[in-house]
Amino acid sequence: MTSKYFMPTRVVAGRDCIVQNSDLFRPLGKKALIVTGAHSAKNNGSEKDVKTALDSVGISYLVFDKVMSNPSVACAYEGAGIARSNDVDFIIAIGGGSPMDAGKAIALLAAQEIEEEDLFSGKYDSKVLPMAFVPTTAGTGAEVTQYSILTNDRKQTKTSISFDLLFPSIAFLDAKYMEHLSIETTINTAVDALSHAVEGMMSVRASVISNALAAESIRMIMCCVPEILDWRSVKNAVLDANTREQLLQASFLAGTVIAQTGTTAVHAMGYSLTYFKDVDHGRANGLLLGEFMRFTAKQQPELIGRIIEIMNLQDVDQFINVMDILLGEKETISPEDIRYYSSLAIQTRNIGNCVVTPVQEDLQKIYEASFL
Amino acid sequence: MTSKYFMPTRVVAGRDCIVQNSDLFRPLGKKALIVTGAHSAKNNGSEKDVKTALDSVGISYLVFDKVMSNPSVACAYEGAGIARSNDVDFIIAIGGGSPMDAGKAIALLAAQEIEEEDLFSGKYDSKVLPMAFVPTTAGTGAEVTQYSILTNDRKQTKTSISFDLLFPSIAFLDAKYMEHLSIETTINTAVDALSHAVEGMMSVRASVISNALAAESIRMIMCCVPEILDWRSVKNAVLDANTREQLLQASFLAGTVIAQTGTTAVHAMGYSLTYFKDVDHGRANGLLLGEFMRFTAKQQPELIGRIIEIMNLQDVDQFINVMDILLGEKETISPEDIRYYSSLAIQTRNIGNCVVTPVQEDLQKIYEASFL
Repeated sequence: MTSKYFMPTRVVAGRDCIVQNSDLFRPLGKKALIVTGAHSAKNNGSEKDVKTALDSVGISYLVFDKVMSNPSVACAYEGAGIARSNDVDFIIAIGGGSPMDAGKAIALLAAQEIEEEDLFSGKYDSKVLPMAFVPTTAGTGAEVTQYSILTNDRKQTKTSISFDLLFPSIAFLDAKYMEHLSIETTINTAVDALSHAVEGMMSVRASVISNALAAESIRMIMCCVPEILDWRSVKNAVLDANTREQLLQASFLAGTVIAQTGTTAVHAMGYSLTYFKDVDHGRANGLLLGEFMRFTAKQQPELIGRIIEIMNLQDVDQFINVMDILLGEKETISPEDIRYYSSLAIQTRNIGNCVVTPVQEDLQKIYEASFL
Repeated sequence: MTSKYFMPTRVVAGRDCIVQNSDLFRPLGKKALIVTGAHSAKNNGSEKDVKTALDSVGISYLVFDKVMSNPSVACAYEGAGIARSNDVDFIIAIGGGSPMDAGKAIALLAAQEIEEEDLFSGKYDSKVLPMAFVPTTAGTGAEVTQYSILTNDRKQTKTSISFDLLFPSIAFLDAKYMEHLSIETTINTAVDALSHAVEGMMSVRASVISNALAAESIRMIMCCVPEILDWRSVKNAVLDANTREQLLQASFLAGTVIAQTGTTAVHAMGYSLTYFKDVDHGRANGLLLGEFMRFTAKQQPELIGRIIEIMNLQDVDQFINVMDILLGEKETISPEDIRYYSSLAIQTRNIGNCVVTPVQEDLQKIYEASFL
């Protein structure tokens, strides 16, 4: 079987890496659109660093700071309209997954005319504005993937655009922007990254290189769990900078993994929890991951055994226990909800990625075991 | 400190991957120059597969099959002249390190005028012909690096051109081309890849991602050693296809490592053995690696301990013993040779890459411990 690897983003990591590497913006153009949310990039210093770097190399910019959580298709078109009418050369996205997802769709839609009904078609011209991305959470890995995931009301779920030209040209990783993230966001995003790495190993597209990166990412995140729990137990403390750095690196590795492998039924099932119940994306994955591993273990015990060993745990039960401790009380999901969500999830492309392919009834049982 | 990652080559791996992915040649152009050596690409079937793939997508080609081992600057200019006079759009290099090193220099020199005295200057325009590479040994990793290493008679050593545009667009990895490699070439190239991975971990530019890839590469190569020794002990046998595949993947991972980290004093010292004594490149590294690890361990015992643990060995002595078994009787190098080689190696850029920086006397002692 053919295996493939491709991840062309230039990654620059370290404290103050944006300001220290402002020259890297030059080849991208003379005018940038900064795509971000309303607050966090202003509060954590990332927007200021980007502006300082741009000023230092004489690049002009304007800011589109209207990206909401789980960005909509409409938001992407709005941003693209602003990019076009202002003739910007490139996009800088700053934020968690949402501004980065929106930033990619804006870079695509600003470079070519795509009707809304064709947006998820996968048929695009080879044109996109260059992108530089600054993640301000350590979870999504969108800074090193070719995916833009948007809320798709037509399908009542999140749908992804997957296109090789959507890999950003540059990703700047600076953990200082995560210093004041809440415990909840820290956990949810870390669990998202963990889910990427574990799902990558349960994908039919897993390869030697994706597994090596996934294993390291899993090891790093699991090593951070005791630090995170200690931190949660002490009021007003700050999570140690080294742990922040580890989580950010692990999230980058896990993003590189899913750029190769895609995600699995876990993400497909999680999207309904987010769409209908507003469950945070990473949390949704974490609530489902353990039971999906148990399902996969029935036919692939060695694979799951290897993952559990990398986690330095004994079995899937113990992993589910760790997730329960991290994620706390679960949302209420009714049997009717579960039936409906299963019927949606089974239609997604992610299902074909699973090394053990579930049928709809399997998805239902995984939801039930996770929530009822 | 800032860490960086960049490896934009698209890697396609698996049996018959060239013929099955001939469409990937289309975006590179309409006319190719195939750069290779005189014999091996014809004998192992790789040149035929490339031609079949090109024919199937209507790309014309001509062949420059004059690349010798450790290719010279003159060879690169000759190939570039042929590329220019025939107006080729892109370069396909097939072979071990030599055709790939030459192929990159040809792609550079065909796209822009560079005088011979400026060839190693690092100052180039942003122009290079696209490249598709087919390694036919599992060692150099040149299919996923930005380096072109040429024999530089002015400096009596091998000198590298390092330029981000020299990453090939595509690398095709098919282990079937290695099926009939001699035991000697198999060992020398495997040791070259191992040296890349280990040197990557001993580099000041090592990062989380380069270390993860290096560790996996080291693990895979060391796991193949018993198979290789079994094979050597049985006349006329063929090395098991799975081992060939493992070695090729490990070499790709190790190439990705040195694309980030560069190589260290080991390569710098090995170049003299190759230039003056015609010692194979990978073998030269293997003869020096153990003693360089011992030198580094004096100040970085934990780092070397971690590498030895990844190798599943007890100590550096045991590693040197494994190398001795693989590489057999050593060449005779005189104390005068050693003094001269040390004086050359200390001047190379590789020295600045070492996590423990050697002075000339250290290099001399490493040569002595390795050869006297």
